[in-house]
Formats: sequence, structure tokens, C-alpha cells
Amino acid sequence: MPPLFTLLTDYGAGSGYPAQVKGVLLAALPDARLVDVSHEVPRHDVLAGALLLEACVPWFPRAAIHVAVVDPGVGTARRALCVVDPEGRRFVAPDNGLLTPFLGPGARTVAVAPGGLLPPPRSATFHGRDLFAPAAVLLARGEDPSALGAEVDDPVRLPWPRAQVSPGEVRGETLAADPFGNVATSIRGTDLPPGAAVARVEAGGRQARWVRTFGEGRPGELLALVGSSGRVELAVDGASAAALLGATRGIAVRVVLVGSAGGAC
Amino acid sequence: MPPLFTLLTDYGAGSGYPAQVKGVLLAALPDARLVDVSHEVPRHDVLAGALLLEACVPWFPRAAIHVAVVDPGVGTARRALCVVDPEGRRFVAPDNGLLTPFLGPGARTVAVAPGGLLPPPRSATFHGRDLFAPAAVLLARGEDPSALGAEVDDPVRLPWPRAQVSPGEVRGETLAADPFGNVATSIRGTDLPPGAAVARVEAGGRQARWVRTFGEGRPGELLALVGSSGRVELAVDGASAAALLGATRGIAVRVVLVGSAGGAC
Amino acid sequence: MPPLFTLLTDYGAGSGYPAQVKGVLLAALPDARLVDVSHEVPRHDVLAGALLLEACVPWFPRAAIHVAVVDPGVGTARRALCVVDPEGRRFVAPDNGLLTPFLGPGARTVAVAPGGLLPPPRSATFHGRDLFAPAAVLLARGEDPSALGAEVDDPVRLPWPRAQVSPGEVRGETLAADPFGNVATSIRGTDLPPGAAVARVEAGGRQARWVRTFGEGRPGELLALVGSSGRVELAVDGASAAALLGATRGIAVRVVLVGSAGGAC
Repeated sequence: MPPLFTLLTDYGAGSGYPAQVKGVLLAALPDARLVDVSHEVPRHDVLAGALLLEACVPWFPRAAIHVAVVDPGVGTARRALCVVDPEGRRFVAPDNGLLTPFLGPGARTVAVAPGGLLPPPRSATFHGRDLFAPAAVLLARGEDPSALGAEVDDPVRLPWPRAQVSPGEVRGETLAADPFGNVATSIRGTDLPPGAAVARVEAGGRQARWVRTFGEGRPGELLALVGSSGRVELAVDGASAAALLGATRGIAVRVVLVGSAGGAC
Repeated sequence: MPPLFTLLTDYGAGSGYPAQVKGVLLAALPDARLVDVSHEVPRHDVLAGALLLEACVPWFPRAAIHVAVVDPGVGTARRALCVVDPEGRRFVAPDNGLLTPFLGPGARTVAVAPGGLLPPPRSATFHGRDLFAPAAVLLARGEDPSALGAEVDDPVRLPWPRAQVSPGEVRGETLAADPFGNVATSIRGTDLPPGAAVARVEAGGRQARWVRTFGEGRPGELLALVGSSGRVELAVDGASAAALLGATRGIAVRVVLVGSAGGAC
Repeated sequence: MPPLFTLLTDYGAGSGYPAQVKGVLLAALPDARLVDVSHEVPRHDVLAGALLLEACVPWFPRAAIHVAVVDPGVGTARRALCVVDPEGRRFVAPDNGLLTPFLGPGARTVAVAPGGLLPPPRSATFHGRDLFAPAAVLLARGEDPSALGAEVDDPVRLPWPRAQVSPGEVRGETLAADPFGNVATSIRGTDLPPGAAVARVEAGGRQARWVRTFGEGRPGELLALVGSSGRVELAVDGASAAALLGATRGIAVRVVLVGSAGGAC
């Protein structure tokens, strides 16, 4: 089967930078298959990129090689990584936390270093083209990650936003908005106690009604639901929850469970 | 020949949602070929999506499977459709009128239902990934649409904007703008009487000069011509007719034919 | 190996126009491989398109066929070109300067004319679909460019922005910004005298500090460096040099070399 690469960057799809990365991949592997995950990650927003990878990578064939570049430190001393996660999926990315969701126990992490199989980068500002794509080509050709550099045990990990589960409530925060203005939170559906029912959700001083899908909402009504990524999301049917909330990241969110004191009023 | 899928959504190309759909298709059919028609359909604008499909589908190989998702009712009681149009082209889409141009006499329409070959959707909010993509995979594997659900004879059809042809004039309305600001109308070139010449076009209180291509226009001049989709379009050379008209949909348009009373002044 | 096409246009990725071009290519060559260089070239900005092609084309396999359409004169008397550059790379594009970087000595240039192998265009406004894509198909099938029309020796060339090298300084101008707001100039790294060190760069009345990569910048500081395309670029770490400069094209730029009188103060 021809090699499959996914690409995630903050370059902008029309900038010509994704095209140059693709050219490098195709020049080396003419039968390579290329899928864009996104080139519209907000500039230098490593957490947003990591969340997108977390949501998208599981749907691809395990053999895919994921090239991810949100890289404010390009050309500085920041390391470059090749990661093989516990499920055997392969990634190349800067060592800035972008691969945090895949760095759990059992992940192999190699600091990719030019000098051996990898030529020195042709530029100091475009390692997607000059370092990560060539590294991905080597992986696709069957090289073991150890051929790209030395294993390291301290990859940069983002502090990963999680939920705090207490009796009667689950607390978290908003993380990112999609183009519809639906806002994902750090609370997952699986964080809610099994069998518990949700009384309501509070976010940024507003109350959201717990529903199953967008179409249950009344005009302008703030909704909360378990979204397609498994995360609790805030939404407004046919409009933007992000606009209603006035922000997309860092708003405190509280899921109040039925039967708790907090849920009685 | 490997299966070919086209994708049309209102998800936004960089949202990660098109990527998840592609992942599902590639995980099932690693040699699938994927072409984006658009992921920038205006949110929930089913007519805009239907017009884009109408313009684009005819240019693809007949064997292509078209996955189209503009789906404000996702997760509600709205049905999901598989359509085989009279030319044998295959589509999956929500039952909300998005496939109206392909629902003419002779079309087969099946209400896609989870339960048999199709697993229940993994989410209530992302049927592109969880229902339409798996249905498209089954079609690509050669399943007859009848294996996906029961035939129905009442698919939702949009009221389709058409032209009113009278002696000396053809009336219609504006429908949608492209990124250049060219505005398509409900009047087709084939609605104009054969051999008739156009005296002028009126739109939103303005007069447009009938030309063959954009470059014939003077700066700021409103033009009308038969566009590449076969529809009469309003345009301004090097600028935006949509901006000039102040709107893109629902503006009355009148093509005045030469020799008619209305064309004399 | 299946044919590989790259596509560069100003159509907008979501407009449906790139999809129609792809449909034509795939209907003729079902195993064709398609890569988007950009569909977000600023409308009718032929120089911006030419600069993107110059930056991207070298990274693709030599056998790729490049379809480039930024075409304000579509349907007028402007010619259509097929070009084979001195390195054997093949292009189709309107004859408006879009291929200027590839029209050096040794390039073959053919004025593509409907009538022989090429049917007349189906529209006067969409030659990407109706003329350039069919011409590219013929090239991919092995037709010699001479089968598409007569050779011409006067293709339109843009006045190509270059650097003026003097003792102690190199002068040029800004050309275009990328989505990060980094601004490319007409000065190339190879225009700087070998071994010379840069004292500073002046642009639009501002001074820029000469660095190797973005991360060396202080907040808000204007930087200058040799970018990934080999051009001197202006940048601000984590922000937009284009916004700081207030424009992207035509700003005078002066690279002051160490040891020159101008560099002493």
C-alpha cells in the first residue's frame, strides 16, 4: 500500500507552504497519498493544533504518518521529534507539546537530528519542508525512528486541560471553537459519572441546557452536549456559542448533575 | 479503478471535520481517491450547497460517489438519503433538499438507516463522519442502495428557483455569489429564446450591459453574461457585483430581449 | 507513474471552480494525482501568483504538469500558453506573465489554440476548466506541446523585481506577504556579496535587525532574514510585519552591509 501522510500546520492552505511540503514528499515518494488535516490552526497555537490532532488522528489508518508543524520556535534550539505512540502510530513534529496527546506511557520519542540520514535543513525558517518532511519520508521508507536521532525521555508536554470530578458536579474550562462557533471544553462525556443525569451546565456566568443535538435548541439558547470528539461542547443552534460567550479559551465550565444540591434550584 | 469520492460540506476546510470524514473513508478503502468540492458552503445554506453540487457534479466521472453534508438537522428526525440519479451517479446526503438537482424523474431514493450494514452513529452531531461516510463506503464496495435502507418516494426538495419566460423578457432572481462577487441567477442561458438578442438586463434597480466575458466591462460597470455554469450571471470586471448590488440572493432580475417594447428605450 | 498535476488559481478553494478543473482532469485521467499549490492567490494578482509558482514549483517532481490560472483577461484576445521550461517542466497558463519565472532562455512557448486536438472552450469565462485543463490532459498523455498550437517567441513577461547591488548596500522592494505577515522582497540572499555581513536593513522608514530566524526577535521588533524561498524577508516574531509596515508591495528596502559608510551609524 502506498504511504499515507497527514498534514497539520498553521501555514494557511493557500500560502504555498503546504504545497512545498507536499512537493518534497511526492518527489521522494511519487505514490504517496496526502491528506490535509488542517492548515488553518491559529498561528502558533500549539494547544489548538494538539486538540485537532487528538480529534482527527484516531480516524486514520494506523499506518499513516502524521506531519504536524505549529512551530513558533523554528530554527531555534527547540528539538524536532519523531514519536511512535503506544498504538504504533508515527508522527513528526517540533518538540513543543504539539504531540502531547500521543506521549502517554509506552510512546517512543526520538530527537530528530540532521547529520546522518537527514541532510541539514535548507532554511532556518521552514523545517516543515526541510526537516519534518524528509524525516517522514525516511519513516515511510521503513527506517526505524532510531535512525533519525537519539531517544529522549523528556519531550515537551503541554499542561493538558482536564476535568475535576466532585460529588454532584464536574468542572472544567473551554478550550477551542470550531468554525460553527461550537466551543469544546476540557470535560469529556466519559468524565460524567455513569448513569448520572445532567441538570444544567454553567459557563462564563451563563446557563446552558443539556441536549443531545443542536436542533433541540431554541433561537439564541446556549446548549451543552457531548460533541463528536467526545468532549462536552457549548453550542447555539444555527449561531455561534463562541460569539455568545465572547471568548473561546479559559472560561470556567461546570456541569451540575441531577440530584446534587447545586442542581436543585 | 480505485473508488473516487467527492466531498461537499459547510464544515470549513481547516476545522478537522473534513479530515475525520477522509480518515473514515481511507481506513475502510485505503486506495480511495478524495476530491474536495467545497468545505466553505455558507453555514447551513442548503440551497448554496445544492447549487454548487449542480455546477460541479457533471464534470466528475460518473462512477464518483458524492458525499454532501450541509446538515442543520443533524441528529434530529430528518432522514439520511442515498440517491442514484437518472444518470447512475451516486450520492449520500441529509434529506433536506441538498440533492434537489438530482432528484428528477428516474432517481432512486433510499432512506439510509443504521441497523443492518450500518452501525449506529457514534455521535448525534457528526453524521458526515458517522453515517454518510460509512454509507458511501458500502456503496463503493458495490452494495446496492437497497442494502442501506428502504426506498422512499418523498425526498425533501427545495423549491427550485427558475426563470419566467414571457414575450420580450425573461425574469428570475439572484441566487449566490462566488468569491469574485459574480452573482448567479435563476435564469439559464438556455431559457433565452433561441436566436434572441439581449437588449439589457435589469437587477435590483440597476441596468447591466450584456457581454460575453468580464474583460469587456468598463471600470465599475455592471455586466450580465452567461457564466460557466450556464446561468446568467451579474459581474463587474475586476470588482464585485455582489458588493455593488448589496446582496446575493433574492434580487429580481429581468433580461430584456431586443425588439421587445421593454427593450426599446 | 500516474500523471501529477499541480493547480494554482485565484478561484478560492471553496468556490467549486477548482473542483470542476479537477473533475475534468479525473474524467480524462482517472489515476491522475492532484495537488493544490494555492487557490487563494489575491484576485487577478498575476505577480503574486508568479511568485508563488517560483517558490513552489522547484519542490515538485520534474514530471509534474503545472496548471496555473490567474486570468483577468479570460475570454478576451489574450493568448493561452503551454510552456516547457529549460528544465523540462511543463506548464499551462494564460499569457499574462504568470509564468515569467520559467520563461528564461531555452524555454519553449506554444500559444495553445482550440481547433485541433482541443475543442472550443465551453465557456468564455472559465478557461481553467475549458481550455487549460484539457490542454494539460493532452500533455499528460504524451502530446508534444507543438500539437497544441504554434510556437511563439514573445510571451508576456512581467517586469521582474530585482535587486540593485552597489558597494556597501543592496536595494530592492517588498513584493508580497504570507499569511503570517512575513513580507518577501526583491532581494535574494544570493544578491548579498559573498562573505559580506549585514549591518541592518531599512524598509519604509523603519530599521530591521538582521537575524537568522524569527525566534531571535523581541516583541514587536522588525526583523530581516533570508527566508525559505531564498528571498530577504521582513518579519516580526509572533506578529505581522505586513501590518507593521502598513503595506505589502512596493516599499523600498535597503540592506546595509557592514563596513560601508551607511552601516557605521
